[in-house]
Amino acid sequence: MPMTITEKILAAHAGREKVEPGELINARVDLVLGNDITAPVAIKEFEKIGAPGVFDRERVALVPDHFVPNKDIKSAEQSKQLREFAREHNLVNYFEVGVSGIEHCLLPEQGLVGPGDLVIGADSHTCTYGALGAFSTGVGSTDLAAAMALGETWLKVPESIKFIFDGELQPWVGGKDLILHIIGDIGVDGALYQAMEFAGPAIEKLSMDGRFSMCNMAIEAGGKNGIIAPDEITRAYVEGRCKRPYKFYKSDPDARYARVYRYDASQIEPQVAFPHLPENSRPVREAGHVEIDQSVIGSCTNGRMEDLREAANILKGRQVHKNVRLIVLPGTQEIYLQALREGLIEILVKAGAAVSTPTCGPCLGGHMGILAKGERCIATTNRNFVGRMGHTESEVYLSNPAVAAASAILGRIAGPWEVL
Amino acid sequence: MPMTITEKILAAHAGREKVEPGELINARVDLVLGNDITAPVAIKEFEKIGAPGVFDRERVALVPDHFVPNKDIKSAEQSKQLREFAREHNLVNYFEVGVSGIEHCLLPEQGLVGPGDLVIGADSHTCTYGALGAFSTGVGSTDLAAAMALGETWLKVPESIKFIFDGELQPWVGGKDLILHIIGDIGVDGALYQAMEFAGPAIEKLSMDGRFSMCNMAIEAGGKNGIIAPDEITRAYVEGRCKRPYKFYKSDPDARYARVYRYDASQIEPQVAFPHLPENSRPVREAGHVEIDQSVIGSCTNGRMEDLREAANILKGRQVHKNVRLIVLPGTQEIYLQALREGLIEILVKAGAAVSTPTCGPCLGGHMGILAKGERCIATTNRNFVGRMGHTESEVYLSNPAVAAASAILGRIAGPWEVL
Repeated sequence: MPMTITEKILAAHAGREKVEPGELINARVDLVLGNDITAPVAIKEFEKIGAPGVFDRERVALVPDHFVPNKDIKSAEQSKQLREFAREHNLVNYFEVGVSGIEHCLLPEQGLVGPGDLVIGADSHTCTYGALGAFSTGVGSTDLAAAMALGETWLKVPESIKFIFDGELQPWVGGKDLILHIIGDIGVDGALYQAMEFAGPAIEKLSMDGRFSMCNMAIEAGGKNGIIAPDEITRAYVEGRCKRPYKFYKSDPDARYARVYRYDASQIEPQVAFPHLPENSRPVREAGHVEIDQSVIGSCTNGRMEDLREAANILKGRQVHKNVRLIVLPGTQEIYLQALREGLIEILVKAGAAVSTPTCGPCLGGHMGILAKGERCIATTNRNFVGRMGHTESEVYLSNPAVAAASAILGRIAGPWEVL
Repeated sequence: MPMTITEKILAAHAGREKVEPGELINARVDLVLGNDITAPVAIKEFEKIGAPGVFDRERVALVPDHFVPNKDIKSAEQSKQLREFAREHNLVNYFEVGVSGIEHCLLPEQGLVGPGDLVIGADSHTCTYGALGAFSTGVGSTDLAAAMALGETWLKVPESIKFIFDGELQPWVGGKDLILHIIGDIGVDGALYQAMEFAGPAIEKLSMDGRFSMCNMAIEAGGKNGIIAPDEITRAYVEGRCKRPYKFYKSDPDARYARVYRYDASQIEPQVAFPHLPENSRPVREAGHVEIDQSVIGSCTNGRMEDLREAANILKGRQVHKNVRLIVLPGTQEIYLQALREGLIEILVKAGAAVSTPTCGPCLGGHMGILAKGERCIATTNRNFVGRMGHTESEVYLSNPAVAAASAILGRIAGPWEVL
C-alpha cells in the first residue's frame, strides 16, 4: 500500500508494515525532550508512576532554555529540578546554561535527531525536526513522563496534507514567509492533527535553516507535524553530525493526501503576520505605516546562522532607529560562536542591537524583552497571540529576519529593499 | 583652612570658600542620574511638585539598566516611563537598550562625569565616580526629583576617613580586593556618612578600572562617597572623553580626617566575602572547600575591560565546570564591543560562559541568573545580603574576576593560581 513519509516513519516505529490515518499506534521513540517549563511536570509524573529509571540515558534530552539564565526564583527551582534529575539518572543529553541553546536549534545541531527518527518533546514546536525528514511532534508532560520511562508513545496516525511550491523563491523570501503564507491561506486550524508535508521545486532548493523555520511553525496551523523529504541538502547537514544511524524516507508517488495545496513560490513576497494570530499574514508591502518599539530576531523559528547572517547583512553599517530596541537571540552557543567568528555579532552590536545569550526569552513572554502596554514589536518568533510577549494590550507582528532588521532600522514595519 | 578633596569639591559647588564636616549645604549638581527602578518614582515626584522642566536637558541622565531588556511587564512599564519622560523633556542622555549599559560603567565611559564634578544618582553605587576625583553619592528618588528640577541638592558635608595603601599590590590583587579588605576591617557600618578617601603608593599605581571597583563599594562600608585624588592615570582616562571642563582637586597635606587607616598592600591577598555581608571577607586561601553552582562576572563593580581581560586570561583554553553556570555581563555595549574585538567574548563562550547583553541582572536578584534554594554563587558584584541574588536560602560570595573565573573552572571557590 502506498504511504506518505509520515506514515512510513510511524509504521517503522510501530514495528508494522503499514499504518493508516486514524489508527492508534504504539510507537518506539528515538528521543524524548523536555525543557525547564515542561520537564518539571514530567519529572513529577515520572516519579508518581514509580518508574525504575529512564528507558535510555542517551535518549532523554533535557534542555533548560525558556527562562534561562534563570529569570526568577521559580525558574531557578525549575532548572534545578532538571539538573538534579539529569544527575540522578546520569543523562547524557542534559545541556547546562553556557553549553546549551534553544532546544529546537540545539538538538539537530548536536546530531541528536536524524532523518527517519521519531521524536517527541513536551514543547509544541518539537515539530521543527520534520525539516530533517523525521517525524516529530509536541506532547504533554504526562506523555513525556511515560515515554521517558518506556521509550514508547501512543499516537493517532495523522492524515497528510501536501503543500507543493512550484517556481523560484524571490529575494528576501524564505521558509518563514512560505509557512506564514500557508497559515494565512488555511488558517490556524487549517491542518488540525494532520501531517503537513512540504514539497516541490522551491522546497527542494530551500536551505536547511529555511526548512527548520518552516516545519517549526506547522503547529501554528494546528498540524501534528511538518515534514520535508530528506535530500542532499539534508544529507550535507546530518553527515558527520548525527550520533545515530538514520534513514531517508520519502512519500510514495501515489500516497494518499487529505488535501493538496499548490503555490507558485515566485508569487510569494516577504510576509508579516499582524496581531493577534499567525494567520493574519500579508505581504510586507501591504503592511501600511506601523511604527514599532521593539524588534526581536531569534527563537526556535529564526535563531540560526542563516537568520543572523540575513539580519547582519541588513544592519551592517546602519543604525537601529532611536525609538526601537533590537534584541538578537542566537539559537545556541555554537551559533553564537560561529556568528562571532563571522563578525556578525560585532555588526549587530555596532548597529545598536542587544545581543543576548541563547534563550527563548521574550518569544513566550518569558524575559529579555517584554512589552509594556501599547507597545508594538516585530519578531521572527512564531506566535503573536494576545499578550504573548507581555502586556495584553501590546502587539506582536511576525516576520522573517530581514524584515525584522529593516524594521528595526526604520522604526516601522519595512522590507529590506527600503534600506538597502 | 586646609580641606580634603571632598570638602573642596563640595565648597566649590556650594559657591563657598570653605565647608566643614557636619554643615548642611545646598550645592549645584553637574549631573543627576536615575535608572529604571528609581527614576519612575522620581518622575512621579517631579510631576507632583509641578516642575516646569528639568534644569538642564544635558545633565539629567536616565539609564534603563537594572531589569533590561525588560524582564516582565512591570519592568517594561518602568522603562517606558523613562523613555517617555526623556522624549517629553528632550533629554540628551537617555540611553536606550542596545546603546546603553550599566549606569556606573556607562556614564564615565560616555564622558559625562569628570574630576571635580558633583554627581548625585538615585542608586547607591553612584559613589563609583569618586574614582575620577569627583564627589558622587546615591540619593533617594525624591531628592533626585528635586535635583532634576533645580540642579541643586542639599548635602551634609561628611567627615573624611583616609585609607592609605603602602607597598605594592600582589599578583591577582586589585581594587576589589582592597575594598573588600577595608570593609572586612572596618565593617559594613565602618564609614557611616563619611567620605572614604583612598590614597598611597598602591592606589597611585591602581588602574582606572581598579579605582572604579574600589570607589563603587564605598557604600558597602556605609560611606557617603569614595574618592581618589585624580592623577595622570585619571587624566589619561578623561582626556578627549569628558564632555565638560573638569578640575583636579586634591586634599591639603594638613587636611583633617576623622580617622586614618594604613595598610601594607603587599600583605593583602585576593579576598572573598562570605555570606551574608561584604564585611565577611577573608583571603581566598582561607576559604576552605566551598562548592559553587554559579559564577557571575560583571556588574557596576567589575564589568569593565580589565575585569573581562582578567577573566578571559584565566578561562582561555579551559572549561567551565559541569556543575557551574558562568554568566558574564559586560558593563556596557562599548565594553562588549571592545571585548569582541580583543577576542575575549570568543574565549569566554568557548569556555562555556553565557555572555549576556549588559544589564545589572542577577546582582540585585533581577534576572539573568537567579539562584534557587540552597544554591551558591561566587560573584564579582557588590552585595551578598540574604536573598540578594534569589532564594533566601541561597548564598553569594564576593570576589574579584580572576577568582570568580578560577572558581567557575574548578566548581569551588578557588584562586587563579590553582588553575594556571
